Amino acid sequence: MTLWGTTGSKPDHKIEAYTVGNDPDHDDVLVPYDCIASKAHAEMLHAIGILDAQELEDLKRILDEILALHQKGRFVIRPEDEDCHTAIESYLTHELGPAGEKIHTARSRNDQILTALRLYEKAELIKIGRLLEGWSRCLNTISDRDGNIGFPGFTHTRKAMPTTIGTWLGSFESACRDNLLLLDAVYRLIDQSPLGTAAGFGVPVINLKRDMTSSALGFEKVMHNPMYAQLSRGKFESSLLHLCTQIMFDLNRFACDLILFSLPDFGFFVLPEAFCTGSSIMAQKKNPDVLEIMRAKYHLVLGHELTIKSLIGNLISGYHRDVQLTKGPLFETIAIVKDSLEMAAWVLEGLWIDKQACEKALSDELYTTEKVYHWVQQGMPFRSAYRKAAKELETSRKSHPTPKRSAR
Amino acid sequence: MTLWGTTGSKPDHKIEAYTVGNDPDHDDVLVPYDCIASKAHAEMLHAIGILDAQELEDLKRILDEILALHQKGRFVIRPEDEDCHTAIESYLTHELGPAGEKIHTARSRNDQILTALRLYEKAELIKIGRLLEGWSRCLNTISDRDGNIGFPGFTHTRKAMPTTIGTWLGSFESACRDNLLLLDAVYRLIDQSPLGTAAGFGVPVINLKRDMTSSALGFEKVMHNPMYAQLSRGKFESSLLHLCTQIMFDLNRFACDLILFSLPDFGFFVLPEAFCTGSSIMAQKKNPDVLEIMRAKYHLVLGHELTIKSLIGNLISGYHRDVQLTKGPLFETIAIVKDSLEMAAWVLEGLWIDKQACEKALSDELYTTEKVYHWVQQGMPFRSAYRKAAKELETSRKSHPTPKRSAR
Amino acid sequence: MTLWGTTGSKPDHKIEAYTVGNDPDHDDVLVPYDCIASKAHAEMLHAIGILDAQELEDLKRILDEILALHQKGRFVIRPEDEDCHTAIESYLTHELGPAGEKIHTARSRNDQILTALRLYEKAELIKIGRLLEGWSRCLNTISDRDGNIGFPGFTHTRKAMPTTIGTWLGSFESACRDNLLLLDAVYRLIDQSPLGTAAGFGVPVINLKRDMTSSALGFEKVMHNPMYAQLSRGKFESSLLHLCTQIMFDLNRFACDLILFSLPDFGFFVLPEAFCTGSSIMAQKKNPDVLEIMRAKYHLVLGHELTIKSLIGNLISGYHRDVQLTKGPLFETIAIVKDSLEMAAWVLEGLWIDKQACEKALSDELYTTEKVYHWVQQGMPFRSAYRKAAKELETSRKSHPTPKRSAR
Amino acid sequence: MTLWGTTGSKPDHKIEAYTVGNDPDHDDVLVPYDCIASKAHAEMLHAIGILDAQELEDLKRILDEILALHQKGRFVIRPEDEDCHTAIESYLTHELGPAGEKIHTARSRNDQILTALRLYEKAELIKIGRLLEGWSRCLNTISDRDGNIGFPGFTHTRKAMPTTIGTWLGSFESACRDNLLLLDAVYRLIDQSPLGTAAGFGVPVINLKRDMTSSALGFEKVMHNPMYAQLSRGKFESSLLHLCTQIMFDLNRFACDLILFSLPDFGFFVLPEAFCTGSSIMAQKKNPDVLEIMRAKYHLVLGHELTIKSLIGNLISGYHRDVQLTKGPLFETIAIVKDSLEMAAWVLEGLWIDKQACEKALSDELYTTEKVYHWVQQGMPFRSAYRKAAKELETSRKSHPTPKRSAR
Repeated sequence: MTLWGTTGSKPDHKIEAYTVGNDPDHDDVLVPYDCIASKAHAEMLHAIGILDAQELEDLKRILDEILALHQKGRFVIRPEDEDCHTAIESYLTHELGPAGEKIHTARSRNDQILTALRLYEKAELIKIGRLLEGWSRCLNTISDRDGNIGFPGFTHTRKAMPTTIGTWLGSFESACRDNLLLLDAVYRLIDQSPLGTAAGFGVPVINLKRDMTSSALGFEKVMHNPMYAQLSRGKFESSLLHLCTQIMFDLNRFACDLILFSLPDFGFFVLPEAFCTGSSIMAQKKNPDVLEIMRAKYHLVLGHELTIKSLIGNLISGYHRDVQLTKGPLFETIAIVKDSLEMAAWVLEGLWIDKQACEKALSDELYTTEKVYHWVQQGMPFRSAYRKAAKELETSRKSHPTPKRSAR
Repeated sequence: MTLWGTTGSKPDHKIEAYTVGNDPDHDDVLVPYDCIASKAHAEMLHAIGILDAQELEDLKRILDEILALHQKGRFVIRPEDEDCHTAIESYLTHELGPAGEKIHTARSRNDQILTALRLYEKAELIKIGRLLEGWSRCLNTISDRDGNIGFPGFTHTRKAMPTTIGTWLGSFESACRDNLLLLDAVYRLIDQSPLGTAAGFGVPVINLKRDMTSSALGFEKVMHNPMYAQLSRGKFESSLLHLCTQIMFDLNRFACDLILFSLPDFGFFVLPEAFCTGSSIMAQKKNPDVLEIMRAKYHLVLGHELTIKSLIGNLISGYHRDVQLTKGPLFETIAIVKDSLEMAAWVLEGLWIDKQACEKALSDELYTTEKVYHWVQQGMPFRSAYRKAAKELETSRKSHPTPKRSAR
Repeated sequence: MTLWGTTGSKPDHKIEAYTVGNDPDHDDVLVPYDCIASKAHAEMLHAIGILDAQELEDLKRILDEILALHQKGRFVIRPEDEDCHTAIESYLTHELGPAGEKIHTARSRNDQILTALRLYEKAELIKIGRLLEGWSRCLNTISDRDGNIGFPGFTHTRKAMPTTIGTWLGSFESACRDNLLLLDAVYRLIDQSPLGTAAGFGVPVINLKRDMTSSALGFEKVMHNPMYAQLSRGKFESSLLHLCTQIMFDLNRFACDLILFSLPDFGFFVLPEAFCTGSSIMAQKKNPDVLEIMRAKYHLVLGHELTIKSLIGNLISGYHRDVQLTKGPLFETIAIVKDSLEMAAWVLEGLWIDKQACEKALSDELYTTEKVYHWVQQGMPFRSAYRKAAKELETSRKSHPTPKRSAR
Repeated sequence: MTLWGTTGSKPDHKIEAYTVGNDPDHDDVLVPYDCIASKAHAEMLHAIGILDAQELEDLKRILDEILALHQKGRFVIRPEDEDCHTAIESYLTHELGPAGEKIHTARSRNDQILTALRLYEKAELIKIGRLLEGWSRCLNTISDRDGNIGFPGFTHTRKAMPTTIGTWLGSFESACRDNLLLLDAVYRLIDQSPLGTAAGFGVPVINLKRDMTSSALGFEKVMHNPMYAQLSRGKFESSLLHLCTQIMFDLNRFACDLILFSLPDFGFFVLPEAFCTGSSIMAQKKNPDVLEIMRAKYHLVLGHELTIKSLIGNLISGYHRDVQLTKGPLFETIAIVKDSLEMAAWVLEGLWIDKQACEKALSDELYTTEKVYHWVQQGMPFRSAYRKAAKELETSRKSHPTPKRSAR
């Protein structure tokens, strides 16, 4: 126990742990992207004469070896490696000597991590896009089957007017289309090669062929301004997280609808048993836990989005180590979105929509607006028809009054 | 003083004030859009036989009158009107009687406010787009003049490598391009006509021509699913606010750069006098208040974005009065973004970039990477060259040591 | 229209408007506190020989004049005054000449605004405390009347076990007690006199009697460290806003309960008519708008709390103009909390709790746990009893099965 | 690959993984608290005749066995156990049969997790309190050594007036005192025994001795209202996280000060080597990575606080599974705060404060206010003295003008 009441364990190890944090874990997912980017970089270094043919071939071979090891879960980033970049470079140098020492020519860890991250983000956006398409298909399939079942639409958490299951499902489908539109924009933002921007100021002396690596890695274009590469770190991620928040918002509302309307008091929906759990003391309970977790995950993603947006504020231009801490929120968010889209489709697939309960809930009052419009159709001005309907309702309520307070 | 320790003033007035809030003020900006939408709606009601030719003409005339009054600041929404929709309908009915009572046929305040909001949002996005273009031109103009001035690039808030004013300005210009890409996507999201979705369940009995109003109002397409119109309320605004956060983020960083590097200890920039203020007690101070306010406004916008995103969570489908409270954050954010882009261009225009101070700051150590790359160019593996440079630096530091703690 | 596409109006005016923002409006509420603090400061300046007896008397007289004018709404801060401090000093100097020029001795606008803010915050915390006490009394009064009405407790938005109105109301009362505990802590944080810390570095040359002004203004103690006065700006406000978020959270939940359980499908509560509004097209609707606004205001306060917490991050020690923008969130939040506590008490006071509906909802299944505990009381291990009850339920459900999907 | 484009793995496993999430990992830290609470609960069950003496002894023995196993890292919560409560109950039942089946009598997982969490939170608050005391001692120790070194105080990121290292360190020390005041309030909030509130509606039939378990577990008092136990879930955590945000805010500012003023251009501080890292391409760099991470962690904590506050909004009374997701933010935040306080003390301990650089930076202009106060002391009104000083500065600047733009 030191004077400051701290744990007293050796600072050096602690400092490393504090700074490196979960990076070795986080970076595991980036290993393949870093290998692919390193292969493209090596090709380019060969093209401009930094690597000879043999060195290029050796590097590519060992990078493929790392890829294969990683796939089998046998390429592990040790804490002392700090991150995937050092782990890979060390492995190359250990295997190849001088050729390994050349791989970091004309790049920095700054553009290396950006490149790996963006390759990862692009791949994940494509997966999320596919899941959105699947979710959309699922909505359409169920709508084809049950879409014409009528049930009450609610405003202000009160029954308002008749609507249909098809309209309800369709609202999520439309939202899904628009999420895809936004996804496309975010993808285009990210689809710019940062490789060659180095530490944010480009590479002096050596003439890079940035177009070459950019094409090889499938980027739409080169991010030419090297300082922009740093300005976009965290900023692009915040757009990606905004997209995720939007997707999760739809699922949050979907979950809210199902949680409420599967209550026996409404009974519009019966949740598939597999998605419910019991209580530890109330033997009768069937709880919609999966949907509650889905609802709650919206807020986790929102918190992550805020973290990134708050963290990058009030800083000057150029790289700051702070941005390392955007990785956790990013990776966790992407996992949440993928899992949740999958889960939502499964829930919907297994959902039983109780036609009888739905239609029974379409009480007379819900047709008030329809009645008004009939009068309008016959020539009555809308406001007069509205007042007439309101008056009729009042009269009918008076003859069937709600019990008065005094009655108690 | 009532039992509950509250102020004791008449509840009814208080309840109205609590519920209506700042809506009469907020809605002032929506009056023109609501009039324009009402004109298009009236045309459609005529086309389907609800309004006769005279009624249509009368309604259009009075709506134009309201527009004219509003422009002169003489159409005021009174608190008892609650919002612009009621104020306009009351005015029409007062002037025209039955024709006024027909204008609300086949629409609800729900789709009416959505329509007015989206017309407003589209118009504001176009203005923001123009201001982004102007900001971009400003960056390019200053870059053309001073872009080749060299100055130190920083990483980790430490001098790192040489860069240029042109690269620095260019990073904001690239960001501006990407903001325009995002703006375009947000515009396309919003560019869908909600008019005719009524309270979120469409209009029974009457056959609307939704394409007609959509085209007349310049929407790209009709938002067909009426429940989606409600699902998109708050959600579209949150995308718009995300765009605003992204724009303000760039200005936040721009402000941070200027605040730090106009410090006499660096002196790269001299701020225009008009943008500085003095101290109430330190006669010598010139403070960068405008830039500090610009920096801080990023967080206001972020808070507003969060409010909207948090407010719309955990609710079931259908309209909730809660969303009314998204108006304040929306309107204030748009004003902040427009003012800030204007202000940033003015600051940059008046900025004096001190070439001498910039270039003097390019100390020898900044060229270490350049030296390394020269050796690499001559065939030395990168890591060996890096280690050689690091060793030379250490030797040089030893001959000019920083004073030791014991020296104090 | 300038080159940058901006509005082209005269920059100087715009710059002032951008920087000063809503401060003249915001500061109106601070005028009395600034006058009171100035009087205490003048007394102290007299005690240390800076002001003579006549000057002191003159200053106090004119400050009282300002207080009286302000109470009648006739002391207005003009935009060119920027803030209340300048407005008051200008008035004093205009009226008194040299004596007015002496009032700013040994203080800065930095400690002046801190002092006025903290006097304001303390006064508002006392008001909020009284409203919490009132809210607590209201909960207890209604509980005394209706507390023994039974109704279903919910978990996972599903009926779980029987509870009572008294337990439900009591949960908010307990929360209220704990909010008062937190309020007390926040009050103690704020109850430190910053007057005399000047710009954050104290006052050289002149020997202040900081205890004297601190006592005169009713502060518990002097904030001795002048840099801490600046460090606490925004930080104390964030604690105050956290308290407000906690209070609004309870009201958010209270509103959610009332909105759902006043639905006719439950009917536990009938909302007082005055707190409901109608629909513009659905003549039958009674919507709980006040409660929806109350629910939504939680998120406004949360957004404001975040703004302050995000805004003060990543800055170095010492005053930054950025903190001026914490005023808006602070003032709006305090108004929201006071209005909402008042509104909640009124809603509860007028609420009709429908005993019949409440008790009818206590269906048999809710007593499952009770049955289990009876068996336990008779010696059966809990888990066995639980399994027995679960089995009985399953059997009973099988004899009254929910219709199968195939049945449709 | 299913129709919905999802991964196609077996839903059941996926659903469990989605719902349970990281709970088995998170709950590891709760095992000891759950065992301790179970022992107290068993004692009480014995006192009211549910358990006989042998059963009590057996349960206590096996609970001690679990505690011992856990300490050796050999009590692992398997995913199929879901959480620590089930894992422990299963173990007891496996070992003891009927006695194990009795342990869950008169409690629910709802009050069980609340009890374990609050015991954990209290223990962690005590640790955080100790670390705050240590940090305070560290600040005082360094201040005793170097406190009288003068250096420039900054406002608006500009040199303002002379201050001392002691004043600067003292500002964090004062903040630390106030954080301890807030910690005390949060501790008192949490220090209420929820055990016996069961699922939020108490325990029917059986007469619990709630005071007995409360005292045995060291709680200050019993939380009597069972619905409040649920209302306080997430709410108390949000107060705890607010405290953490406040602590991290101070460290954020501390880190910002050190990062900027250890820049060679200022040189007030020289960071201990162990807390810096190099660059992968710029051999000359010494980067303040630890401090950047410390600065960034403020935003992680802020994001977590927001998650909790947003997640618990817009829900009705009673337990929701959603709150399970507050565990991650809570546990991660507590770890961050403890590590960061430890790290800050180490950084400060190893910091070298360069007296020469500090004092050299005290340029003449910083003494302007002092000069003004000397004149005031001699009888000149403050504003006249201020204007005189401002004029002298202007004259002096004119004779040493900053180079004009035309000069370039």
